[in-house]
Amino acid sequence: MRVPLHQPVLAGNQALADQNRARLRSHGLFCLNLISSPGAGKTTFLERWLPLVRRHLRAGVVEGDIATTLDAERIAACGVQAVQINTAGACHLDAQMVAGALDHLELGALDLLIIENVGNLVCPVEFDLGEHLRITLLSTPEGADKPDKYPAAFRRADAVILTKTDLLPHVPFDFDAFRASLQRLHAQAPIFPVAAPRGEGLERWTEWVLARRPSSSAAGCR
Amino acid sequence: MRVPLHQPVLAGNQALADQNRARLRSHGLFCLNLISSPGAGKTTFLERWLPLVRRHLRAGVVEGDIATTLDAERIAACGVQAVQINTAGACHLDAQMVAGALDHLELGALDLLIIENVGNLVCPVEFDLGEHLRITLLSTPEGADKPDKYPAAFRRADAVILTKTDLLPHVPFDFDAFRASLQRLHAQAPIFPVAAPRGEGLERWTEWVLARRPSSSAAGCR
Repeated sequence: MRVPLHQPVLAGNQALADQNRARLRSHGLFCLNLISSPGAGKTTFLERWLPLVRRHLRAGVVEGDIATTLDAERIAACGVQAVQINTAGACHLDAQMVAGALDHLELGALDLLIIENVGNLVCPVEFDLGEHLRITLLSTPEGADKPDKYPAAFRRADAVILTKTDLLPHVPFDFDAFRASLQRLHAQAPIFPVAAPRGEGLERWTEWVLARRPSSSAAGCR
Repeated sequence: MRVPLHQPVLAGNQALADQNRARLRSHGLFCLNLISSPGAGKTTFLERWLPLVRRHLRAGVVEGDIATTLDAERIAACGVQAVQINTAGACHLDAQMVAGALDHLELGALDLLIIENVGNLVCPVEFDLGEHLRITLLSTPEGADKPDKYPAAFRRADAVILTKTDLLPHVPFDFDAFRASLQRLHAQAPIFPVAAPRGEGLERWTEWVLARRPSSSAAGCR
């Protein structure tokens, strides 16, 4: 019963995502969609990365959560524009929710829009939001077998951020097995190991994002 | 577009779940449904718990994963009956999938059936599988704010297992905030802190399960 409906929903989402991308492009915005399990450290990563990336780009954040405004409050405390989407139980963001959030941002005052998706390594993968790059985060305590077990989240990623590398001495995470697992998926994504609370790995990541961002005249091309 | 379909699907699932529960009851089986984020440690928990609980009950496991048979292989190595369900992309187990898995188990040779759901703190919550108790696991690296952010997974739990407590010296997990967060949800679930690799917390958990299991004449009553 579920499959026949799935396609129309996704087709409708795709049209809205393309509209979002065109709207962002018209304002010269570059957009990242961050996907991970609950508790992989997306918000902590942003709290540490935003002060660095703001030296180069004017950044805003859309926070996706099932409930609470906890994350948007943490992000707003970084001094950037932040909008919270509460999905009211839905397990992912979709392009329509993001379109509504864009209405609450001063787009002309931004260069970079970061969307923090609902914590879920499965469902958000199916929904294009209008982003230019899709970033999957995995935390070391989750284990190196996750690309094998949640293949779509990694196969479709433009980059993979491995968070909580400060815990590597305390958790059984096999980095070589992790890399081999990504290779089995033919994933092209580069891996960025990061220990956000220590600031480790953030500069290399920032350079990569800046290099991937189109010049302003071509901003928004995917 | 999605909501109108949701109810018929859930209604169909509920009828099948009730059939599963009746079938399990007819064999005197007691059934647990384990729900958590990816990488919260469900399989490691089972690897350590199964040798203990097998002193009291004959246990079997149904493993739910989007892809791979990795977890069922780990569980089968513990010497128990194990069946793998691959959901082919679906983000949760449903009662029909479990009904199919039951056909592959020798139910008359079991007292306890443990279902390890797909790693996802959102979608599996909606689907009764025919279990008698629903158990939500949270790992300490995920953070104490998760009951606030994923309320349904905790509000509907019969028990909460807090895994990876051996990492407490290394992660910013506030146990009092976690307990307060559960209280805000009016969650009745007792909390079982566990460090599975060290075997810590497993005996208290085993006693609780054994006490909740009905006597064989009433097995399966919910």
